[in-house]
Amino acid sequence: HKDCVISNMPSFQGQNAHAAPREPSSSFIIEAAWIITMNTQREVLAQHALVVVYGRIAGCMPWEEAQQAHPSLSVVDKRTGILLPGLINAHTHLAMNLLRGYADDLPLQPWLENHIWPAEAQHMGTDFVHDGTQLALAESVLSGVTTVNDMYFFPDVTARACSDAGMRAVVGLPVLEFPTAWASDADQYFSRGLTVLDSLRDHPLVSTALAPHSPYTVSTESLERIATLSNELDVSVHMHVHETGQEVEQYASEHGMRPIARLQEIGLLNPQMMAVHLTQLNNDEIEQLAENGVNAIHCPESNLKLASGFCPVAKLVDAGINVAVGTDGAASNNDLDLLGELRTAAFMAKAVSGNAATLPAMQALSMVTINAAQALGLADETGSLEAGKAADCIVIEPDLGMLPIYDPVAQVLYSNSTHCISDVWVAGKQLLKNRTLLTLSDTEIRAKAQHWGNIISSQA
Amino acid sequence: HKDCVISNMPSFQGQNAHAAPREPSSSFIIEAAWIITMNTQREVLAQHALVVVYGRIAGCMPWEEAQQAHPSLSVVDKRTGILLPGLINAHTHLAMNLLRGYADDLPLQPWLENHIWPAEAQHMGTDFVHDGTQLALAESVLSGVTTVNDMYFFPDVTARACSDAGMRAVVGLPVLEFPTAWASDADQYFSRGLTVLDSLRDHPLVSTALAPHSPYTVSTESLERIATLSNELDVSVHMHVHETGQEVEQYASEHGMRPIARLQEIGLLNPQMMAVHLTQLNNDEIEQLAENGVNAIHCPESNLKLASGFCPVAKLVDAGINVAVGTDGAASNNDLDLLGELRTAAFMAKAVSGNAATLPAMQALSMVTINAAQALGLADETGSLEAGKAADCIVIEPDLGMLPIYDPVAQVLYSNSTHCISDVWVAGKQLLKNRTLLTLSDTEIRAKAQHWGNIISSQA
Repeated sequence: HKDCVISNMPSFQGQNAHAAPREPSSSFIIEAAWIITMNTQREVLAQHALVVVYGRIAGCMPWEEAQQAHPSLSVVDKRTGILLPGLINAHTHLAMNLLRGYADDLPLQPWLENHIWPAEAQHMGTDFVHDGTQLALAESVLSGVTTVNDMYFFPDVTARACSDAGMRAVVGLPVLEFPTAWASDADQYFSRGLTVLDSLRDHPLVSTALAPHSPYTVSTESLERIATLSNELDVSVHMHVHETGQEVEQYASEHGMRPIARLQEIGLLNPQMMAVHLTQLNNDEIEQLAENGVNAIHCPESNLKLASGFCPVAKLVDAGINVAVGTDGAASNNDLDLLGELRTAAFMAKAVSGNAATLPAMQALSMVTINAAQALGLADETGSLEAGKAADCIVIEPDLGMLPIYDPVAQVLYSNSTHCISDVWVAGKQLLKNRTLLTLSDTEIRAKAQHWGNIISSQA
Repeated sequence: HKDCVISNMPSFQGQNAHAAPREPSSSFIIEAAWIITMNTQREVLAQHALVVVYGRIAGCMPWEEAQQAHPSLSVVDKRTGILLPGLINAHTHLAMNLLRGYADDLPLQPWLENHIWPAEAQHMGTDFVHDGTQLALAESVLSGVTTVNDMYFFPDVTARACSDAGMRAVVGLPVLEFPTAWASDADQYFSRGLTVLDSLRDHPLVSTALAPHSPYTVSTESLERIATLSNELDVSVHMHVHETGQEVEQYASEHGMRPIARLQEIGLLNPQMMAVHLTQLNNDEIEQLAENGVNAIHCPESNLKLASGFCPVAKLVDAGINVAVGTDGAASNNDLDLLGELRTAAFMAKAVSGNAATLPAMQALSMVTINAAQALGLADETGSLEAGKAADCIVIEPDLGMLPIYDPVAQVLYSNSTHCISDVWVAGKQLLKNRTLLTLSDTEIRAKAQHWGNIISSQA
């Protein structure tokens, strides 16, 4: 038995602006068969309990010790379950859940240009974003996700939906050159985005990132403005980079350099950059990303389904690049099952590198927990179960499809474990209890999803 | 509304030796929001009902018509569900469920030689096979599988477990040259296997195939004997073929030809061959498999996880080869989630061919239904919902993770739909009802799985 408790209960008051309110319901003990801590030593602790005080982790220790040390706290008995950090979906477009399955079996450009963008032009607005985001948040909670890194229009609506649901989120402030329902030109994207950024400055759960869509849809001038803002405001940049070969070739033929070279020139290759997809990379570019501390966000299922290419994950990891994993939007995936996505990432990394030892289970799991927290700039707050961090955690109750258990980490990753996620907490607030959503209405969300499906099909 | 009912109810008595007993409980109507028939026209019928009489499909027709035409039959109301043929897992090693997660992140040969084979040598016997198979059957039923194509030791025990659970099965009669608990040498593998074959001749659900492990573990002499037996007894051959590059190279250097050339020479390339894996194929070999009507069984997740290589599925399909999909054993996957496997197969086919239009949803779905039935020689009996076939069918009740539904086929394939499988029937007998197992004991199976896990870990 390991013991990683802090002997003196720390005082959390004033320690962190993001602290949860001091509600008695956010102080408790969770007992589990195993705790996968994702701490620096990657400890997996058998028959341990996590002690949560006012939404923050006070420590973890053997079952009996926890009860003895904190007799006043209520106990959540998950003695057959696996407790792990809440999962972080490092790239998604939540509202696009309403377009799940709207167009399949198509490459990226015709899929976007002939199907997705026209549907968005017709339907996208505050109601679409609200209802689509709620549908996605419900699916995310049921998939064990406690933090989302979103990129979509009407980020104010997304932020409110996340806040209402109790989800931790980084909402991307979109920048494009062409008009949408959200903004008419680059200037308006910037001004509306910065208003949202200001309004969320002191939010305990929701923060923002600048989200230029991609080098091929955002002008160099706008990208330069983003570099300046990112630096001045200390805010991350969330961007699709080198998603397909076609896009990279076209950019190179029009601009005389590949997109990553342009981003370097502009000063956007830095530790605040979350570069999504990266299926087209030469060795020099990998070196460049590594040297500049860029975070890579890998979305394997979207890349496979749209036949965009293979992200060379093993090479990125070997180069020392921080890699996180995202599902992308449900329109190109077609689900937000992040553990399933991670399994695909692990499988692909092995197959593409030709080595079954590539990306072993624990290393993979870090890509949706601690590494993802680092990519999002939230590593002090979430991504591991360590004293002082917010209590973002989930319980997996193994069904017979996960038995027997020789190694809980491998079993969480390699078997279809998502539907075994029974309980979810964010900052000590429970969002899922025995597979029932507590902050979102299943019935209402289903009804709205079907309603939107009917509208969108009938007008297709 | 389409109508594919047979106007005169056929008499099934004596029509087929595999007919289910004439129990009243095996006659009923299932109403569904959609029926994915997988018939020749691949019809998807909205608001239709499947009429089942004594375990066989009598037809399908609109909801109201079915009740009017068959007023005496009880009605199963699944008016929000998707009804489709039961899924066929075309390659698995059921009993190996007890070794799920026993050794991960390793290539095929060290995985087999240093971990799996030693564990089998220590533990494998009738109890291991019985308990492991029951665990796998429970997981299979919960995953919507109604037919398994198994390959493992003690096929008599596997057959009995399948029969007791009501699962349709083809059990492989293993042939190897080295001793195991099942047989001491090739002669004994043959004699014990043929005894099992004889004992199952008239079984309504369980049949047999000859199952030489692979060209590299079975002698040419034994393979010749298998070719003769397959021909004389009219029985299929189920075999790992060209799973890894290492195996093919080593065989070629020892024998002066690649394994497929040897199989051709022996006469084993024919429509009764179910060749599993096929990650190492040159264009001539693809042509050869096509010309000889060999069935390809694709196990993408096992191939990815063991870094064995990529089966060129698009090329196989283009060459006219019948392709089915299997999960492989849970020790190398690590689950029997066949829809998840199929999603991976579809993703991989697109990515490997570089074309997102490759293997669209309906074509993919045929690889775990009608194409798989053809590969197993069971296409007259199962694999589609058509009049005259056995009522092997499943219902998927979409949760919010499958909404909205624009195309039910795409949604079944591309979203994580396995845990939405609510009901399963084989030959009209219900095995799963609202996600509760009816023929297998969840509690007992879980206890035994944990028991074996403890024994195997403690002696590792």
